[in-house]
Amino acid sequence: MSLHPDTRSAPAAVAPNLRFSHVAIIGKYQAPGSRDVVDEVAHFLHDEGCDVSLERDTALNTGLMQYPALDVPAIGQACDLALVVGGDGTMLGIGRQLARYGVPLVGINQGRLGFITDIPFGSYREKLHAILHGAYEEDPRALMAASVWRDGRCVFEATALNDVVVNRGGVASMIELRVEVDGHFVANQRADGLIIATSTGSTAYSLSAGGPLLHPAIGGWVMVPIAPHTLSNRPIVLPAHCEVAVEIVSGKDASANFDMQSLTSLLHGDRIVVRRSEHTLRLLHPAGWSYFDTLRKKLHWNEGG
Amino acid sequence: MSLHPDTRSAPAAVAPNLRFSHVAIIGKYQAPGSRDVVDEVAHFLHDEGCDVSLERDTALNTGLMQYPALDVPAIGQACDLALVVGGDGTMLGIGRQLARYGVPLVGINQGRLGFITDIPFGSYREKLHAILHGAYEEDPRALMAASVWRDGRCVFEATALNDVVVNRGGVASMIELRVEVDGHFVANQRADGLIIATSTGSTAYSLSAGGPLLHPAIGGWVMVPIAPHTLSNRPIVLPAHCEVAVEIVSGKDASANFDMQSLTSLLHGDRIVVRRSEHTLRLLHPAGWSYFDTLRKKLHWNEGG
Amino acid sequence: MSLHPDTRSAPAAVAPNLRFSHVAIIGKYQAPGSRDVVDEVAHFLHDEGCDVSLERDTALNTGLMQYPALDVPAIGQACDLALVVGGDGTMLGIGRQLARYGVPLVGINQGRLGFITDIPFGSYREKLHAILHGAYEEDPRALMAASVWRDGRCVFEATALNDVVVNRGGVASMIELRVEVDGHFVANQRADGLIIATSTGSTAYSLSAGGPLLHPAIGGWVMVPIAPHTLSNRPIVLPAHCEVAVEIVSGKDASANFDMQSLTSLLHGDRIVVRRSEHTLRLLHPAGWSYFDTLRKKLHWNEGG
Amino acid sequence: MSLHPDTRSAPAAVAPNLRFSHVAIIGKYQAPGSRDVVDEVAHFLHDEGCDVSLERDTALNTGLMQYPALDVPAIGQACDLALVVGGDGTMLGIGRQLARYGVPLVGINQGRLGFITDIPFGSYREKLHAILHGAYEEDPRALMAASVWRDGRCVFEATALNDVVVNRGGVASMIELRVEVDGHFVANQRADGLIIATSTGSTAYSLSAGGPLLHPAIGGWVMVPIAPHTLSNRPIVLPAHCEVAVEIVSGKDASANFDMQSLTSLLHGDRIVVRRSEHTLRLLHPAGWSYFDTLRKKLHWNEGG
Repeated sequence: MSLHPDTRSAPAAVAPNLRFSHVAIIGKYQAPGSRDVVDEVAHFLHDEGCDVSLERDTALNTGLMQYPALDVPAIGQACDLALVVGGDGTMLGIGRQLARYGVPLVGINQGRLGFITDIPFGSYREKLHAILHGAYEEDPRALMAASVWRDGRCVFEATALNDVVVNRGGVASMIELRVEVDGHFVANQRADGLIIATSTGSTAYSLSAGGPLLHPAIGGWVMVPIAPHTLSNRPIVLPAHCEVAVEIVSGKDASANFDMQSLTSLLHGDRIVVRRSEHTLRLLHPAGWSYFDTLRKKLHWNEGG
Repeated sequence: MSLHPDTRSAPAAVAPNLRFSHVAIIGKYQAPGSRDVVDEVAHFLHDEGCDVSLERDTALNTGLMQYPALDVPAIGQACDLALVVGGDGTMLGIGRQLARYGVPLVGINQGRLGFITDIPFGSYREKLHAILHGAYEEDPRALMAASVWRDGRCVFEATALNDVVVNRGGVASMIELRVEVDGHFVANQRADGLIIATSTGSTAYSLSAGGPLLHPAIGGWVMVPIAPHTLSNRPIVLPAHCEVAVEIVSGKDASANFDMQSLTSLLHGDRIVVRRSEHTLRLLHPAGWSYFDTLRKKLHWNEGG
Repeated sequence: MSLHPDTRSAPAAVAPNLRFSHVAIIGKYQAPGSRDVVDEVAHFLHDEGCDVSLERDTALNTGLMQYPALDVPAIGQACDLALVVGGDGTMLGIGRQLARYGVPLVGINQGRLGFITDIPFGSYREKLHAILHGAYEEDPRALMAASVWRDGRCVFEATALNDVVVNRGGVASMIELRVEVDGHFVANQRADGLIIATSTGSTAYSLSAGGPLLHPAIGGWVMVPIAPHTLSNRPIVLPAHCEVAVEIVSGKDASANFDMQSLTSLLHGDRIVVRRSEHTLRLLHPAGWSYFDTLRKKLHWNEGG
Repeated sequence: MSLHPDTRSAPAAVAPNLRFSHVAIIGKYQAPGSRDVVDEVAHFLHDEGCDVSLERDTALNTGLMQYPALDVPAIGQACDLALVVGGDGTMLGIGRQLARYGVPLVGINQGRLGFITDIPFGSYREKLHAILHGAYEEDPRALMAASVWRDGRCVFEATALNDVVVNRGGVASMIELRVEVDGHFVANQRADGLIIATSTGSTAYSLSAGGPLLHPAIGGWVMVPIAPHTLSNRPIVLPAHCEVAVEIVSGKDASANFDMQSLTSLLHGDRIVVRRSEHTLRLLHPAGWSYFDTLRKKLHWNEGG
């Protein structure tokens, strides 16, 4: 059934100078067509001398059975590199889970360039070979630990790599939010909502709402009001040690969103608290990588027009 | 029970040069404390020589029984001036209904200055006296006739004085909207939503979302995307003769809002069509009124800082 | 010396249904390489049955001597169509001068698509043929008549098709401008400057400074402050009948720019007055042209990313 | 001539627990009317047990001769606190000079609240007394060390507390700037100019041009393009360790401004380099001070409207 049935029967000795010995491959979520791609990349890694495992859903989706299928905690314990073959969404999903294990991630994009999935499929062999032998840049990304408090009790916890968003319901008018930073009152804001974004999230929703780009080394957050009633309610960039609390003062059907997860039907008095997670996402890029090259390409700077 | 029981028993002859002979008073919606204010204004109008009626809810809320209580169609047929004692919200609500009858409106604000409710309570006698005798500026405002189409049938119709808003649900991510103007394709926009605002609405939600101010004499619309994914999706100002069609391409729980009314659970393929209403809201202001004076005060220009 | 020496010796009879009989060609300013292109287009027009003249500088730049070389007033009197082979800048330059004569303009772009120079060189034959026979859309554009007043006297007059800009000197800090519309005080604005743009200019500098797009049929102006001190000093769209006056209140080295022309060293008290020009630029586009198609392409909407 | 002739004849013994023993007073630049205010504050400090000196220009402007008049280096060596009686401008001017000496600054505003001059004159006695006895918050502010390079040689150096601005001349059109960060190419930007602002400067020009607010503890910079041609050229927040280089690619009469100082007539190829200064401005605030209180008041948040 496998295209390479016997590659696993002769386990490779670890190649000299190989920095990463056991690599987990994570494919695009529910993308059946990715079998050949994942298989090819796995074969390449094996030839480089790595042990290869597949993330469990990836194994199921692709039907590739000749590699161990590991769930996220097992990857966290057994692997020293996670290789995503997909897009930024896949990268963010698995990165959020792997951050606690300190396993670094590398991303190969199959289609267009991602903000963090920056190795084109066409050149992955050369780029991965170099990375496996230590030629890479490490790009640590801060995560947010968010919690929701009701009547003095924590009713929800989540980790976010992009942003925490508190917003009004779909048919409601503005909500009013009381914002505090480190216990200091900032303002009561009437708006469609408020985004608290990491530097990773600063190129996503936050940018659409008028936020600035945050260099990854900033480590802090940007609070961006969405369509604020008061025109001087501008984005504020905060250092990473700040704790932000957002209280629902008024408004119907408010909800809080943590990357992909949502908590609906927030009540007046509910508080969403955001602080720095103790974990950090470890992204690896090919040596010579520049954050600005990615920005320039993704944001279509210098293309004329 | 009335403070002025016998003023109604001696109906005033129409004073010479009185431009408006029958005035309807509309009070703030569900504001029980407004009885004295409405009564005082009604008495003033009677003394000026006008017939006075109360809008039916206003009569109920205030308990003032000595004036005829009329519903909106009756006001439309019988009265030649509508006097709002309240704020912009009250003005917009009754204005939208009265536009079809061509009855002009004047607004007295009890609290802070409104964008269109611009006579301070403290000086209403002098200002109204002048207006009743013809010293006023007429400020016609365009209205939008909006409709929603599903499978080729019109399923909803509404008139909007401020804006028509199509937006995503509270916990959904962006929606995609296909926008057409006069049958010409404009763009597929991914955003939190799209606002189509009149000049009256250009100082409301549209302004928060990044739209420009439209002088009332413009007569046209501004389309303002809310947190658009594509940064070059900027507000577009259209002439009043343009018909705008917005189709839901993708996204969950999209809804359409027409001033205060909402239509939820829009489906993919639903089309919201906006064109100029055949009716016009007739606002009257004291002679010498300037739109820019109101903008300057409401937007706190020239206050230092 | 000419590639087509004898085409001029046999003047064409006007073809049946030819809407335009005498076409002036205007080439890109100081672009020596355009000789072949201009010659080819001229030959094409001749073959279509038109009389062809060259704008004088175009004749000098290209060295094409077999066509009459006319200056702008002569074009205005003799020609019934002006064909620009170049870019938006060339179109704006000649359009501003030709507006008073009512001669319509058509634009062929040699390089990338222009906002108003919208016929690609690759398909000009088919498009021009259709236009010459009456298949076109007319797209009239408003112009601004601007004047500068000092001590009650007019010291400068200019016509602008894009924008009138009043701004600070290069090393000065903010200037303060007193803005009036139709004699009504609007605000004293402290900013880098103020742009008053037509719909044609709304895709140029005004857009960079945060202004909205104005549909050409709007006919009015948008006033856009550049980096205003007061955050609520937002762009204002005015109807075309409004007269705008901008007075220099304070600030060093202020200047006023009218499309390409500049007036420097403005003094405190100087007033720049902008009103609608009595002339209109007549742009012609191929039948089926849509303003929104051009916007979508030029602003890179719907390109992914 | 002095109102308090004998206070200086009996020099105070240093009071117990006095944290600052020698205070320099700096008055508003060229503000003759400040004599009484400065004299009163000096008297108060003397009564608190401090030695008091006046900055030299302040001594000259006020004519107060009974206190030693010191120039900035002498203040830097002799004093352990600098007290500014004026506004943010005075504070920034002296702060930039004193940073190298590590002398902390406190600001009393006479008129309206400043962003950094935050003790109202009406309550300075209580607030200063507490600060002098150690009840204060220290708020360190990063400075930028800027230099201009031509043909490989440094032709200008300056320190900036607010911002470094590179911009076009007053009558020129856009300039093109090549931006690099830590040697990495960012983009060629066509714009009116580029602002590189500290957190202190993020409430000034940068805010007008669309930049975010940076919390002082951020320590980094924000690069804000002024009216950029490319709409996706958004503000970028950089960590303090980044070195920014801006090269003039094209454009006439470009200049660079460093807080108040200007360098004009920049040439194509000139490079402006900005890095973190080795010095830090030490601002002191009354205990309990919150950056957000100042923002909220200065930006008129939560004032209704």
